[in-house]
Amino acid sequence: MAPETQGQKRENSNIVFIGNKPLVNYVKSVLIQFNKQNSQEVIIRSRGKFISKAVDVSEIAKRALEQKVKIKAITTASEQFETKGKTTNISTMDITLTK
Amino acid sequence: MAPETQGQKRENSNIVFIGNKPLVNYVKSVLIQFNKQNSQEVIIRSRGKFISKAVDVSEIAKRALEQKVKIKAITTASEQFETKGKTTNISTMDITLTK
Repeated sequence: MAPETQGQKRENSNIVFIGNKPLVNYVKSVLIQFNKQNSQEVIIRSRGKFISKAVDVSEIAKRALEQKVKIKAITTASEQFETKGKTTNISTMDITLTK
Repeated sequence: MAPETQGQKRENSNIVFIGNKPLVNYVKSVLIQFNKQNSQEVIIRSRGKFISKAVDVSEIAKRALEQKVKIKAITTASEQFETKGKTTNISTMDITLTK
């Protein structure tokens, strides 16, 4: 497998995007980043309804790593998009965990 | 009406608890705190699935107040409770807006 494929890049990134998968998948991704990829920092990125899930992932990962990581920053923003000629805003959130 | 009733106290508090009501109700509560109650600081408090809604409230209030308020802090935590002998964790979030 070529090391520069899109999938490979994403797997090695320290950004975990929260979506429809079970909560535990994202917790595992965060733990792998810290424990196997030796990342100093992991960003848990979420939008809209997934923001609540992102906070759960962050809280569970912190407990699992027993105070070895802490929240460095939580930032929120809004993204605009057009649907059927209407402008809609969606909230976004980045939680940065650091060792 | 006595000024010390529970309802009165809650109304004058600078903490807005996010729940099942429509989004706009909470946005209005935040705006009233800043504009009518002259609060320097408003805390948007949420738990579990309402966390996403809290971020929406914060983003909409910021836009409505056109940069006159900013996010001072976002903190997350976990609360434990027992249901049917099982310990469950729920995530909580406080967004502090300040003038």
